[in-house]
Parts: sequence; C-alpha cells; structure tokens
Amino acid sequence: MTTPVINFTDKFAQFSDLWSPKIIAQMNDYHFKLAKVKGEFIWHDHPETDEVFIVTQGQLTIHLRDGKIELKEGEMYVVPRGVEHKPYADKECWILLIEPAGTVNTGDAGGELTAENDVWI
Amino acid sequence: MTTPVINFTDKFAQFSDLWSPKIIAQMNDYHFKLAKVKGEFIWHDHPETDEVFIVTQGQLTIHLRDGKIELKEGEMYVVPRGVEHKPYADKECWILLIEPAGTVNTGDAGGELTAENDVWI
Repeated sequence: MTTPVINFTDKFAQFSDLWSPKIIAQMNDYHFKLAKVKGEFIWHDHPETDEVFIVTQGQLTIHLRDGKIELKEGEMYVVPRGVEHKPYADKECWILLIEPAGTVNTGDAGGELTAENDVWI
Repeated sequence: MTTPVINFTDKFAQFSDLWSPKIIAQMNDYHFKLAKVKGEFIWHDHPETDEVFIVTQGQLTIHLRDGKIELKEGEMYVVPRGVEHKPYADKECWILLIEPAGTVNTGDAGGELTAENDVWI
C-alpha cells in the first residue's frame, strides 16, 4: 500500500518562498502548514480561531501588543483568537502552523503579504 | 509578562508512564498531547475524528488492517476517522498527538490501557 507518511524535512525541501504557508496535511477541518519566514510580518489577528506555531528550525519572535514570545526549535505557542500578533525572524526560520482550513495568513489585515491559502505540497 | 511557551523537551521530562497522553496545549476545541509509548497498544478506532501522530523521538509503527505505517522522528501521519489502528514501538518512542478535546486513547475499544484524558502537564 502507499504510505502517506509526511516527512517535514522532505516537505521543507520542496519550497523556498518566504511567508507563504504550504499545506501538508488535513485533520478534520484543520490544516497543517509549513512556512519559511524571515524578517518582519505584519500586525494581524484571527478573530475566529486560535493559531498554533511550532518552530522546527531557527528562532521566531511573536510580537504581541503587551510583550513578545520567543520560540526556538522544539517549542510551540498558541496565539489566542482575536489577539494581535506580528511574527518576526532575524534569520530564516522554519515553522509548522496548525489552524482551520481557510485561515488566511494575514487574518483580517490583508495587504501584499497575503498568501494563497490552498497550496498543497 | 508570563510567556507560556511550550517546550517539548521540558514537557517530556515531566512524566515517564507509558501510553498515557498528557495535555500540553489547547487550540480551539483541540488538545495537543505528549505520550511515551513502548510495546504494543490495542486495536481501536475513533469513529468521530481523525487523529494526528507526530514522532518527536524514536520510531513508531501504526498497524492498519491493510498494512502498516512506519514513522520516525520528524514524521507525521493522519489516521482517518473510523480507521482501525494499533500503534507499536519496539523501543520507547515519544509522540505528539493532536485530536479533539475529550478523545479517549483507546477509542471505542476501552480496556485496561484506557488512560485518563484530561491530565495536563
């Protein structure tokens, strides 16, 4: 039988564009997405859902209006629904995102960093 | 501010019992759970939900009625809802599970390996 095992390293090797999450799996109505990020994203929130960040390589800062979260490889954080956040990575950082299918990366903020949200790899 | 960063290594250091998932985070109505497993689990399924397995250390076999899935560190698999499966690990293996809050580890099968499903660490 085909074994649809998802190997993170293999999946990360399939793309290089930044701030453009790629879907690797679906669980019920949730998507698992990989992204490579570097530099500064924009302030945004997701009014309808929590959002999970897991760092698989590098370091990620998630700025919040009242502080910041520092994540390194092997760490995760749940951004609560409706909480404004601005991801930032000094050097390229690889992350796993988990959120409902259809969640847009820029939330309600929009703008030029808004990525397609239905790209599977 | 308190930074509720979840570090997988730190969380795994907090328990040693096998086949007894510990909740580390909640995203909407889903739980993220860590478990240490070794040996053979039981055949069971979850009629209401898919279930995600991510291996963070070691190797895990998920037996299916029509084959088996072999997972190593950095790999994930989504067991579809209603699909019977039997996890197995030759040596101790550490995993991250993602599934709806309230999901019981033995599904509808029950039995002595049924763990409490509301233990947070």
